[in-house]
Amino acid sequence: MTAFAELMAFNRQTEALGAVAERLGWDQETMMPETAAEQRAEEMAAMEGMLHARRTDPRHANWLAKAEAPDDAGRAALHHIRRSYTRATKVPVDLAEALARLTSTAQRVWARAREAEDVEAFLPTLKQVIALKREEAAFLAIGGDLYDALIDDYEPGATADTLGEMFGRMRPRLVALREKVLACPMPAAVSGHFPQAAQLVLARDVASDFGYDWSRGRLDLAVHPFSSGGNTDSRITTRVVERDPFNCIYSTIHEVGHSSYELAIDPAYAFTPLGHGVSMGVHESQSRIYENQIGRSRAFAQHLFARMQAQFGDFGTATAEDFYRSINRVQPGFIRTEADEVHYNLHIMMRFDLERALIRGDLAVDDLEAAWNDRFLADFGVAVDRPSHGMLQDVHWSCGLFGYFPTYTLGNVYAGCLNKAMRAAVPGLDAALAQGDTSGAAGWLRENVQRHGGLRTPRDTITHACGTEPSEGPLLDYLEQKFGDAYAL
Amino acid sequence: MTAFAELMAFNRQTEALGAVAERLGWDQETMMPETAAEQRAEEMAAMEGMLHARRTDPRHANWLAKAEAPDDAGRAALHHIRRSYTRATKVPVDLAEALARLTSTAQRVWARAREAEDVEAFLPTLKQVIALKREEAAFLAIGGDLYDALIDDYEPGATADTLGEMFGRMRPRLVALREKVLACPMPAAVSGHFPQAAQLVLARDVASDFGYDWSRGRLDLAVHPFSSGGNTDSRITTRVVERDPFNCIYSTIHEVGHSSYELAIDPAYAFTPLGHGVSMGVHESQSRIYENQIGRSRAFAQHLFARMQAQFGDFGTATAEDFYRSINRVQPGFIRTEADEVHYNLHIMMRFDLERALIRGDLAVDDLEAAWNDRFLADFGVAVDRPSHGMLQDVHWSCGLFGYFPTYTLGNVYAGCLNKAMRAAVPGLDAALAQGDTSGAAGWLRENVQRHGGLRTPRDTITHACGTEPSEGPLLDYLEQKFGDAYAL
Repeated sequence: MTAFAELMAFNRQTEALGAVAERLGWDQETMMPETAAEQRAEEMAAMEGMLHARRTDPRHANWLAKAEAPDDAGRAALHHIRRSYTRATKVPVDLAEALARLTSTAQRVWARAREAEDVEAFLPTLKQVIALKREEAAFLAIGGDLYDALIDDYEPGATADTLGEMFGRMRPRLVALREKVLACPMPAAVSGHFPQAAQLVLARDVASDFGYDWSRGRLDLAVHPFSSGGNTDSRITTRVVERDPFNCIYSTIHEVGHSSYELAIDPAYAFTPLGHGVSMGVHESQSRIYENQIGRSRAFAQHLFARMQAQFGDFGTATAEDFYRSINRVQPGFIRTEADEVHYNLHIMMRFDLERALIRGDLAVDDLEAAWNDRFLADFGVAVDRPSHGMLQDVHWSCGLFGYFPTYTLGNVYAGCLNKAMRAAVPGLDAALAQGDTSGAAGWLRENVQRHGGLRTPRDTITHACGTEPSEGPLLDYLEQKFGDAYAL
Repeated sequence: MTAFAELMAFNRQTEALGAVAERLGWDQETMMPETAAEQRAEEMAAMEGMLHARRTDPRHANWLAKAEAPDDAGRAALHHIRRSYTRATKVPVDLAEALARLTSTAQRVWARAREAEDVEAFLPTLKQVIALKREEAAFLAIGGDLYDALIDDYEPGATADTLGEMFGRMRPRLVALREKVLACPMPAAVSGHFPQAAQLVLARDVASDFGYDWSRGRLDLAVHPFSSGGNTDSRITTRVVERDPFNCIYSTIHEVGHSSYELAIDPAYAFTPLGHGVSMGVHESQSRIYENQIGRSRAFAQHLFARMQAQFGDFGTATAEDFYRSINRVQPGFIRTEADEVHYNLHIMMRFDLERALIRGDLAVDDLEAAWNDRFLADFGVAVDRPSHGMLQDVHWSCGLFGYFPTYTLGNVYAGCLNKAMRAAVPGLDAALAQGDTSGAAGWLRENVQRHGGLRTPRDTITHACGTEPSEGPLLDYLEQKFGDAYAL
């Protein structure tokens, strides 16, 4: 056996064990009895410890020195394994296990604190998480920027400075758009009572419209929607708010985007480092283009309006155009996951600045709530009325996901680029979407982005699909055009 | 750190990883998309390979040589670890992985073959399973009996000869009882249509009657009911046949018995070898005493009759006594899991003889269906009418569970012993059961059997609870008394 073959065989088992850990995470959020949290934390810590030991197995040094890849896919696999090994060997196994144990219980603490609107109940745990993440970042950064070291885990190649510069270019145009739109009369919102069971029927129908492969997935409820797994088993979750059917519908479409990416990856890449979405930013570009550029388009809105009428009868919205305007209503809101396309990136920029300050040590955890609320008032013009509408709204920090938030906006930027290229390449797209036929769009994304998995770097993945380097321009053009038109600016 | 502490710390992680593998097995039978079977097989094989590597870690030799246990629980833990290490080191890792991979896919092959009533579709897979199990048994037996080597995995200390002798003593009394009962007029069966949703409501209520702790468990549907996990997360599954509510009810009570055992074990034993039911036979004694000696008693039948009326209204059974007789109807049937208490052990004895012959090489797989059908006709007086009523009815062989079947009858024998001791010890038991109050019975079992987990050997566990050595006498006395009375023999 060659060094390359030995390394890939070893890595294949690690990939399989990693998939098990991911499935366990799904179970924790969907099926697990709540009382089992402590036990599960110990099980997850054992899995993480075992995976860490494999990823830092000292045989890697020799394998990586000698391995010769036979093709591009092999070279890309070696690149991923070398990167993972280099990162993993920097973090002591005790720290990796402590983080896994802590973040497993911390999610439950967060969920209860959010339920109870009790920031104090979460702060001691959050302090522990941040302390361990800073420790981890210090091992990874080796003297460099702590926050950059964490971003790199989710978006290889991205840095806080380049992201911050891009956010700086985006902000004036978003703010200008926001102010113009908010000066207009607001379209009517859909309101009423939409029972959970009917929403879930609709969610399944809409997931099917987007080509979700039920033979390789399933839909369950979770506090915070997510997708999990790949290859032949990629599951999605959603949530239901009975007064707001769009929370469930668009959470579902969003997760179908993530899951479709995983399910579309070349089966030859299964159980290799190429068998996953290449970065969080590229992943998010898929969920966002499904959710927004396709799912909230005027064309698809026609189809969704008919589906809503079939499920709920007359729900108080008279025309497809009214419906389109109601699903693209722009208003300052507390909740990131419910934000419209104009405001969404402002939510992210705020979290980006706050978590960068937390990790760099420029902001104390005790001051976080005040800092959040001050910034929110400044950016959105509204005072946060309760913690679940403020700093307790997102699961991320309890999971130790610092450096993850900016990838959402990067995903939007990539989605903007892909949408421009897709619309140039696929004829008759809107006519098909109006009939609920997403196959042209999904097919283009599958062929040009999704099937390649981790073959190229994140940026190169987008460049390959679009034929040009990614930039924020197409997203901003799209937003100005769409909302200028919808609001007759 | 002492050798004992080092060994226990290592073992604790192995226990946690083993719990993950068990949870994955639950997912496979309840939640997993069917198309994911191949992928899951590779994941399970990686888990099994990793667990096998840990259980055979060469550091055990030194730890076991030097470890000094501080107390009885420590000595029992060392006994289990030594036994597991000795067994595991006998089986090559490649074989363990191949078995895990094969049996994972074989279950799907079996399920499809059963659905299609197609024995031929299952035979090639079954041949592979048996070939690998014979190979495994040869490594374990080191010249001894192949089938004994497999039994020992499920019931340490039991052998085919002693079990066969006990079965030989039981058979004449069971046959005599069966013939007397079948000569009587058969009580009316409950018939009708009992919708799945209502059955599941009833199943949950009855599980609650038996004290199932929903904060540490859950109930789902599966092809073949099972329980899974322990400590703070022990889940049960059931199945629904809409023309027969007792399939669901008694499957549920049975699995509640298994799960209650796991959930009752002293929390101090969690993540140690003492934190599981000590053997399949003792485990089955708990599920059987819940299902039969308690759940099918005349007293509990009064309560269950009221629950059935509340759920289904008048379902055609007039009195509690008629109901009692209908849930204790004796008739030759094809399906083991639906068999009455008089016939059940005859189903087991048949499987015991057939699988012993398969493993010893005295019966070819191609001849199995004929052998099964001949034996069934001889023992039950009825010809098997289709494979799902015959050799395709049980999941066990597809999972590689050879040597497991006899532990069911051993469980019945143990349940007979425990029932005798429990009734002597708990006053007013029937009066409580008639009100649906199982706390006296469950409390006695928890205190005398369940909480001890793996502290004693299987036989000693029963002897400790009963004050006498286990034997088949109490079970046979109980059956003759119960059915003699119910049928007025």
